[in-house]
Amino acid sequence: VENHWMMLMMIPDLIKKKRDGGELSADEIKTFIEAVTTKKIQDCQTGAMLMAIWQKGMVTTETKALTREMMSSGEVMSWPKEWAGQVVDKHSTGGVGDKVSLVLTPALAACGCKVPMISGRGLAHTGGTLDKLESIPGFNIHQSKEQIREILDSVGCCIAGQTEMLVPADRVLYGLRDATSTVDSLPLITASIMSKKGAESLSALVLDVKFGQAALYKDLKSAKELAQSMVDAGIGLGMCTCAVLSQMDGVIGRCVGNSLEVIESLETLKGEGREDLMELVTTLGGVLLKNTGLASDLSEGRKKISDVVTNGKALSKFQAMMEAQGVAKDIARALCSPETDYYGILGKSGKQEELKAPKEGWVLGVDGMVVAEVLHKLGAGRSKVGEDIKHRVGAELLVLLGQKVKKGDTWLRLHYEDPAPSPDQIQQLKDALALGADEPQHKYTLVKELLPPM
Amino acid sequence: VENHWMMLMMIPDLIKKKRDGGELSADEIKTFIEAVTTKKIQDCQTGAMLMAIWQKGMVTTETKALTREMMSSGEVMSWPKEWAGQVVDKHSTGGVGDKVSLVLTPALAACGCKVPMISGRGLAHTGGTLDKLESIPGFNIHQSKEQIREILDSVGCCIAGQTEMLVPADRVLYGLRDATSTVDSLPLITASIMSKKGAESLSALVLDVKFGQAALYKDLKSAKELAQSMVDAGIGLGMCTCAVLSQMDGVIGRCVGNSLEVIESLETLKGEGREDLMELVTTLGGVLLKNTGLASDLSEGRKKISDVVTNGKALSKFQAMMEAQGVAKDIARALCSPETDYYGILGKSGKQEELKAPKEGWVLGVDGMVVAEVLHKLGAGRSKVGEDIKHRVGAELLVLLGQKVKKGDTWLRLHYEDPAPSPDQIQQLKDALALGADEPQHKYTLVKELLPPM
Repeated sequence: VENHWMMLMMIPDLIKKKRDGGELSADEIKTFIEAVTTKKIQDCQTGAMLMAIWQKGMVTTETKALTREMMSSGEVMSWPKEWAGQVVDKHSTGGVGDKVSLVLTPALAACGCKVPMISGRGLAHTGGTLDKLESIPGFNIHQSKEQIREILDSVGCCIAGQTEMLVPADRVLYGLRDATSTVDSLPLITASIMSKKGAESLSALVLDVKFGQAALYKDLKSAKELAQSMVDAGIGLGMCTCAVLSQMDGVIGRCVGNSLEVIESLETLKGEGREDLMELVTTLGGVLLKNTGLASDLSEGRKKISDVVTNGKALSKFQAMMEAQGVAKDIARALCSPETDYYGILGKSGKQEELKAPKEGWVLGVDGMVVAEVLHKLGAGRSKVGEDIKHRVGAELLVLLGQKVKKGDTWLRLHYEDPAPSPDQIQQLKDALALGADEPQHKYTLVKELLPPM
Repeated sequence: VENHWMMLMMIPDLIKKKRDGGELSADEIKTFIEAVTTKKIQDCQTGAMLMAIWQKGMVTTETKALTREMMSSGEVMSWPKEWAGQVVDKHSTGGVGDKVSLVLTPALAACGCKVPMISGRGLAHTGGTLDKLESIPGFNIHQSKEQIREILDSVGCCIAGQTEMLVPADRVLYGLRDATSTVDSLPLITASIMSKKGAESLSALVLDVKFGQAALYKDLKSAKELAQSMVDAGIGLGMCTCAVLSQMDGVIGRCVGNSLEVIESLETLKGEGREDLMELVTTLGGVLLKNTGLASDLSEGRKKISDVVTNGKALSKFQAMMEAQGVAKDIARALCSPETDYYGILGKSGKQEELKAPKEGWVLGVDGMVVAEVLHKLGAGRSKVGEDIKHRVGAELLVLLGQKVKKGDTWLRLHYEDPAPSPDQIQQLKDALALGADEPQHKYTLVKELLPPM
């Protein structure tokens, strides 16, 4: 009781210290997070502290302590000794058409890793891995700690949602950050992401930190700051952590939208993936294989990932994971067979509209943010936690960057239900295509930099 | 319902705007204050907004709008037409031994003003006018709007507490500012004080803004900033507002502590007031008489106030006010008679201790902050809203600044109950007396500056 009282008495002093730009000690951060977890702090105080952190930032030692205390606010997973060094995961800061997790997770399992991926739902313009998986009939993203361990034991990979027991302090703070306009704070983003990854007790973690017009951070410099902050926090928790800085201007791969992205992921796992998607999958996977010692260098790691995607071993893991997570055997088998009727199993939106190229030219780019925002308004995404989404709404990009199109060629196929796109939205989509008179000189690559460099 | 929903949707945007240093429009401030008053805003959002305001400040137009919206969040008083131009009040930012209100309020009434003083309780090292008045048996500080109007009609002055209906937005914000470490913010202080004064619908207001070692602001410059901010806000509400900047290092007058200050106020109203207290009373009152046109200039205003204090007219008003606010006729009369047994009526603390001068010398100063803090710990003040206080605990300062004392002369008489002062506290009090070897050259004056100058 006395400790409780002492803690409450201290909160205004902690807020004052951060308000004035001071550096909070590890003990002070522990007090704050304990008060958040046990709900002993007043909400107005949490709001004030979040705003003070937003305004004044945190030095690396503070961010590390915040991450550690948030991680320790709940359950921390533990793994059998024999998995030591093999437990890995990947996190992306969010892209348009980013289905990397659906391909990479089974590929890593096929290479011998254990992947206990705790993933999230989509919010605003970015999609969520859990939403995509839930467009598969029967897929159950609710898995307990014990079930995750069993699935890792039998299959090697599992993709599940955050449980109540995992990082409860983050659940509270994350819930308040939107309301208090304190989302875009480097230490708060870092601690939120890395505390959850820390609670997975990983050996190695790779981060896909995106920059560009369809990313949270528009320029490489600020994305690198976030990447460095997360890498520092990950290393502080004893995980071998690296970051990949990747460009996010257009659309990753061919499809955007939940069930369409599942279809593209299955196509990719059958060896028919687009180059840009495979570049991200092999780079992120290659880094992890190198860091776990399963490959001697990045290049060997990339090749191993590429091989299991090409030879069907990753596809088998995906099939096994689906079955382990509740998908009926015949559905899982059908989805993974060579001649799948994807729409027959996953359904298809009631209506499609095809957009035609207005003139001849080379495809210079497609504005991913515009595509994402229009789809969001058509029901593919949610604006508020807990909202329903329409899994089948989405778009297929039918051209490649740098490709020549003729006037009238179909370049985008929109899948919609109710509401139908407004004339204004159709115009926005049309304007998202940039055509050039000359062939682009440089090959387009998504991966710009590794942190630390390898 | 739609407006309500719109309002909630806007709050994070308002926080974001202020977070980024933007200027909130009058409409945006109205939305925020309405959400606070109707409790539609989440507490975490209020905390974040308070911290954003603390960090980024407000320009004059924002502070004025904040003050106006807070004022309009509740009841605003209205007065009979025939009082036009006569309704006045005074506010002090808080001093040690500051019983100016108890003397000035009846003096103003004796000069023909109407004084609907809404006052507060003491917190931390400063005393509160309501606490002082409540040391008089029967004095009732709870007066409705209607009762205040009646008392102003019959007596001319009334000192009461804030009602539930008055400035409810301030009640909410004030309650959260302590917990969120956002007390010392210029726009928040300004709006809190001035919205309450605005709700009194005053013709003229004078502010006593203190600076020095026993004041919230230590230097004249920052006190002037606050004074200017409050004057601007007051003028924005249509009140003729002036500020007096006064030094607050020592103790005002002879006594500190609730019932002791009532005794000193009565002595002063009987013409036996100390010079420093009378300097403040006549200056603040003089400014108001000039601004209401009851005096042609400050000097005539000061003289009129001085006259009614000397000739007993102010004392009669105080007696009438006590009776109108619940004090029994015989007690009010006894307190105002020439030969009063003050302790017989108000009680006296169980124990006194007299401190002696350790050597011969001239009194250069007494540290008011030390005196206030020791008395606070002995029960004269409260640390938390709602705590009980000991009305009879206090101290009498038995010397004047610039006076010569001999070794062993009593310079302070401490009135205490339970707890008794610790040896450490006694030592602190002893150290609070500064003695010099030479006679000070300059006469000590409290009033340093008027804003605007007259």
